[in-house]
Amino acid sequence: MTENLPDPWASLQALRAEPPLVQNITNFVAMDLAANVLLALGASPAMAHAPEEAEEFVKISSSLTINIGTLTGDWVKAMHKAVDVAERTGTPWVLDPVAAGATSYRTRVASDLSTRGPAVIRGNASEIMAIAGSGSGGRGVDSLAESFEALDAAKALAADRKCVVLITGAVDYATNGRQTLAIEGGSPLATRVTALGCALTCSVGAALGVEKNPLAASALAASWFNAAGTRAARLAGGPASFRSAFLDALYNLEEGDLADLIKAA
Amino acid sequence: MTENLPDPWASLQALRAEPPLVQNITNFVAMDLAANVLLALGASPAMAHAPEEAEEFVKISSSLTINIGTLTGDWVKAMHKAVDVAERTGTPWVLDPVAAGATSYRTRVASDLSTRGPAVIRGNASEIMAIAGSGSGGRGVDSLAESFEALDAAKALAADRKCVVLITGAVDYATNGRQTLAIEGGSPLATRVTALGCALTCSVGAALGVEKNPLAASALAASWFNAAGTRAARLAGGPASFRSAFLDALYNLEEGDLADLIKAA
Amino acid sequence: MTENLPDPWASLQALRAEPPLVQNITNFVAMDLAANVLLALGASPAMAHAPEEAEEFVKISSSLTINIGTLTGDWVKAMHKAVDVAERTGTPWVLDPVAAGATSYRTRVASDLSTRGPAVIRGNASEIMAIAGSGSGGRGVDSLAESFEALDAAKALAADRKCVVLITGAVDYATNGRQTLAIEGGSPLATRVTALGCALTCSVGAALGVEKNPLAASALAASWFNAAGTRAARLAGGPASFRSAFLDALYNLEEGDLADLIKAA
Repeated sequence: MTENLPDPWASLQALRAEPPLVQNITNFVAMDLAANVLLALGASPAMAHAPEEAEEFVKISSSLTINIGTLTGDWVKAMHKAVDVAERTGTPWVLDPVAAGATSYRTRVASDLSTRGPAVIRGNASEIMAIAGSGSGGRGVDSLAESFEALDAAKALAADRKCVVLITGAVDYATNGRQTLAIEGGSPLATRVTALGCALTCSVGAALGVEKNPLAASALAASWFNAAGTRAARLAGGPASFRSAFLDALYNLEEGDLADLIKAA
Repeated sequence: MTENLPDPWASLQALRAEPPLVQNITNFVAMDLAANVLLALGASPAMAHAPEEAEEFVKISSSLTINIGTLTGDWVKAMHKAVDVAERTGTPWVLDPVAAGATSYRTRVASDLSTRGPAVIRGNASEIMAIAGSGSGGRGVDSLAESFEALDAAKALAADRKCVVLITGAVDYATNGRQTLAIEGGSPLATRVTALGCALTCSVGAALGVEKNPLAASALAASWFNAAGTRAARLAGGPASFRSAFLDALYNLEEGDLADLIKAA
Repeated sequence: MTENLPDPWASLQALRAEPPLVQNITNFVAMDLAANVLLALGASPAMAHAPEEAEEFVKISSSLTINIGTLTGDWVKAMHKAVDVAERTGTPWVLDPVAAGATSYRTRVASDLSTRGPAVIRGNASEIMAIAGSGSGGRGVDSLAESFEALDAAKALAADRKCVVLITGAVDYATNGRQTLAIEGGSPLATRVTALGCALTCSVGAALGVEKNPLAASALAASWFNAAGTRAARLAGGPASFRSAFLDALYNLEEGDLADLIKAA
């Protein structure tokens, strides 16, 4: 990985040959789209959040993803319970700090979870800066900053939490604090479709099923997304036809779509 | 507003120039579609219902929408908590009394909320008659009456609650009890797509971000919806292609689509 | 019914002439799709799970469907409360034991509910074998076995629970333990769209609104689904365009689409 960039096409083939089971504790808005994204990629989604089955579900899953989008107290407890199990079993997990920075409750919940050993934190610039303690606060789920503006905060956060941070925006960046990869492609129409970022978080979970290195896995998932976004934008007449074409494109990705999207930054 | 009808095109341009943040406590069925409708319009949706962050979220939002579709006791508490804050901060809010009339619990929750100062109540004929105390009860979310049959009930309700009532149906009516506007356009296919009415409620929230007068804001949101519905019906082969074409149409609305939809009634 | 196979076209016409209200306590992932499927068929969906209104809602509904997909303790209580009412009122209800076998909690909840008199249990092969106590456990919602492999388990389960079991897969089977019907058609693309099985469960509820015999009702709902799946596969370029074409096809089903799909097995 240090010398070579990850190979999106080979990894996608590997994922489809042995579909990883990805457990997702995600928000109500994203559940349908995220499950469909995982299915289109070829992975097997489990949308399960009951504390009563956290122990067993995490154990049969390749990875776990946790998204605080529509958090309440009960759900936060369920998230920590699942992380407890992931900690014991060594299951890699991904954190999506949706709208961190918008309220102090949300920022605190996201920060607490970020200290519990996620393999990857995936967010937009505002969210990453909020957890890193360097932002001026977001406004709901829409970022008020460009992804490159959050790069220093992301590197510091990655170094402090010993994890990978994936910032999404016009260009996506994955960093472990020492190395940074840029992932190109995609479409501005993606910002007009709710929960695509949340679904990417779940796809990082899928990538971790075939690629142990979290920096590489983050870049792989982003490359699959961006390639599908680029294809979909050619066909779309608006956000809903983009969403539909995006899912079809994920399912139909070809090797050529995935070439040269990941670069050392 | 008393002399002039609201201008849907100018208002949509204003909304896109300064996207309002709309906080929505809505039902599980509607969350995905409602967020996508707000994004297609150009607004910024926040689907957040935690009592722990109600105070801060309402304060950063232009408006609040409350929908009782999949209510339970906890959610009703969260709704009242958010209304407490909206009351203090003067944030305008919109009530969607989904399936009021179907059960006494639902009717009571909707009636209670309706007395707490919503700027707008948006419902179908059965729902409005149920809250006004004049209906024979609906049957789930589908209205058993035409919108014009609920017009007297709507006027009485608007006068009593000092708010605007927006009844949707083949023709939509917005009334403050003294003045009534009719909004034309749309398609019968919209009744075969779940949660479009709920998404309209959220769009009234968006309209309140650019138009303080709740009668005008209600008519504006309905006109955007109906214009998109008319466009979508031309392309649709069934309810799912209608839903997709509807969201694309909202995103692509042109001035001509919006002409002459709002009339004094 | 013993001599004659059920007639999908006549039943669909009957459903559209007098749309049954179907109450669904289903999972967060499926709610949107399931409601849209019921609307496309011509039925009237109610997605309502509050214990406070269970009594009244079950009473105005033609049937009830219960799906444990995103179960937690509170939801399980609400499911049992609704079944209490259905028991008293004689309302037929359908059980969807999502991912039974994946965790012991889930298997226990599904098994408990299965002993409470459902008219129909609808699941994939892994789920049915898990409740029948003969399976090796599934892995989330994706079956690890083919539908015919679960046929003996399904017959035993149906005989024991005195209900109908509908197993879905490449070929669907409905059995009451003595008689078995096979339902053909559909598309493998359906396995790449989340919650279609859950939506079929809700459609069995709709079928029970027009056909009292649960074996016939199960076969009818499966035949509507498979006919729409066959039509949609002709138009689809991937899972999302399949989902959209599927809903449009349900809405546009013609007599010819439904011929010869149901066979004695």
